[in-house]
Amino acid sequence: MPKRFASSKAQVRNPVKISERQFVRVLQQQVGPRRGRHIVAGLRQGIGDDCAVLAHTRQNDLLVTTDLFIEGIHFKRAWQEPASLGHKALARGLSDIAAMGGTPHFVFLSAGVPRNVADTWLDGFLDGFLRLASQYKVVLAGGDTGASAGGFLADAVVLGEVPRGSAILRSGARAGDEVWVSGTLGTAAAGLGALQRGKRLRRSDATLNPAVALTLDPALRAFCYPEPRLRIGAYLRQRKLASAMMDLSDGLSIDLARLCEASGVGAEIDAVRIPRLAGVSLKQALHGGEDLELLFAVPKERSRHVPRSIGGVPLTRVGRITSGRKLSLIQSGHREPLPILGFQHF
Amino acid sequence: MPKRFASSKAQVRNPVKISERQFVRVLQQQVGPRRGRHIVAGLRQGIGDDCAVLAHTRQNDLLVTTDLFIEGIHFKRAWQEPASLGHKALARGLSDIAAMGGTPHFVFLSAGVPRNVADTWLDGFLDGFLRLASQYKVVLAGGDTGASAGGFLADAVVLGEVPRGSAILRSGARAGDEVWVSGTLGTAAAGLGALQRGKRLRRSDATLNPAVALTLDPALRAFCYPEPRLRIGAYLRQRKLASAMMDLSDGLSIDLARLCEASGVGAEIDAVRIPRLAGVSLKQALHGGEDLELLFAVPKERSRHVPRSIGGVPLTRVGRITSGRKLSLIQSGHREPLPILGFQHF
Repeated sequence: MPKRFASSKAQVRNPVKISERQFVRVLQQQVGPRRGRHIVAGLRQGIGDDCAVLAHTRQNDLLVTTDLFIEGIHFKRAWQEPASLGHKALARGLSDIAAMGGTPHFVFLSAGVPRNVADTWLDGFLDGFLRLASQYKVVLAGGDTGASAGGFLADAVVLGEVPRGSAILRSGARAGDEVWVSGTLGTAAAGLGALQRGKRLRRSDATLNPAVALTLDPALRAFCYPEPRLRIGAYLRQRKLASAMMDLSDGLSIDLARLCEASGVGAEIDAVRIPRLAGVSLKQALHGGEDLELLFAVPKERSRHVPRSIGGVPLTRVGRITSGRKLSLIQSGHREPLPILGFQHF
Repeated sequence: MPKRFASSKAQVRNPVKISERQFVRVLQQQVGPRRGRHIVAGLRQGIGDDCAVLAHTRQNDLLVTTDLFIEGIHFKRAWQEPASLGHKALARGLSDIAAMGGTPHFVFLSAGVPRNVADTWLDGFLDGFLRLASQYKVVLAGGDTGASAGGFLADAVVLGEVPRGSAILRSGARAGDEVWVSGTLGTAAAGLGALQRGKRLRRSDATLNPAVALTLDPALRAFCYPEPRLRIGAYLRQRKLASAMMDLSDGLSIDLARLCEASGVGAEIDAVRIPRLAGVSLKQALHGGEDLELLFAVPKERSRHVPRSIGGVPLTRVGRITSGRKLSLIQSGHREPLPILGFQHF
């Protein structure tokens, strides 16, 4: 959600799409400087983080995140079974909530449905969406439907909560903090690569039975059924272990650049430390998108309290925050500028 | 928002689009009966009203509404200047908040932008959107952008508040209540008719200057720059004048049918009482959409407290709630069944 305004995928690797960039710029002008969080009553954090943070009750802040999921841009219908697309349409928003250390409560689903979409496909999409919602006790509370003159599209809006003032923003990293990630990186990119090479997630492979989904190839599973890291995000918040956090939706290099920009710092990453599965390239791990893992900064004195894993998902230190504004990659004893390449779907 | 799930436009006059109907049905099954408002903690009202109502603070409930606005389905880009489309993209959500008697606070805007949309068009869209937001002190707090493979689309999610337990639902109308509407009906339909006959709202007519907008033909103004009736909705709630309320987005006949269905009642409408401008047909007033006026039921004993107008907008009694489930139209002393025809854009 708001993160997309800050730097949208289309701007990264391909020729910049001026109109969208303009849109983003205008939004930032309108919402950013002129209306800081200290000016607008109730808005603690607006555009530029994973979620908007709104003053809510005496105990809690409200988190709001919106994620567009558009056929032909974010997914191809022919490549994945509908349940995996329903799963992803929601997982992206839940991951935004996780990145603030929050707990999701409600989701609103708006869907534009083209005429060539079959009932069974919609059933499958909703099955995947509602199964994930149920897993995290998230209630589908409303939404909107309309016909779509283009492809299928979904906009999922997730509302969650976090104890007042405790949302973990992107802007809190300080020089000397360590850089950590959850899970393995580049795994979803490897899954996308497999789909691009013609591998398909078939109905028979899968997956409305989670026990069966577990037997999927890990790369396909990471791309088609990413798990939002809600438990990890909440753990880090409760124990005050992270000074800054965001989710890895567009790739480590571009997302780290965003976190560093928000915090006014730089970072260096040790290539050898980046956790990746066999068969996943360093390039995929650095620049592949959609892992929905967490990227977070840990103050040095809190580092020993970070567990090696939470719920079976490894947590790994991959670098450190520096005082400059540069991003560096350390590889075979050499330091080089970290190229910033965002993730493009197609 | 939720209202669309209950009965989506595409189902009304055209051959039913099965896939969308199925989608709606599945959503209702998932969200409706199985998860009533007494079961899910915090959800006071889910799908089936203008807004979802969520438990919020000790003083207030949270209102959430989402409205899809899709090129080729809800509007044609060539027919209206971009500012009027930005205005409408937000006005629809504000009207949903008005229909609960609430106050809007935040909006989240997700936009899918096709490659053939120019910067100046986007600037105009945002100008119209933000001008209306500013008028009602609504803060754009976030959103998402992406490329669109089809036409332009916007999903506006508005968050508002209402004093706890005081949201005016669709389900509170009782036999004997009076049926009232704000403003004039069919005016937007007449404006759409003018556009269909080739009349255009040109940049030069209009409208970034509200003083100029006022000089527009009233029908074009109603269609292109509808005013959400927030002041009226809040007035009716504060003085406990309305037992049920919704906004007129799809037309009096279909929307009245929805209010009556939610309340388990019927209604009869006096054709002669329906407020309409010169040149607006009874058919347009009964079945035309997009007026964004308020439709509300008033208990008889509260009727004398309803003012003739609020802020220059007339309030008019047009009929009464009955104990049967039928909808009737009284015209020239004859009672006939009220045909239920929803609004189709194109």
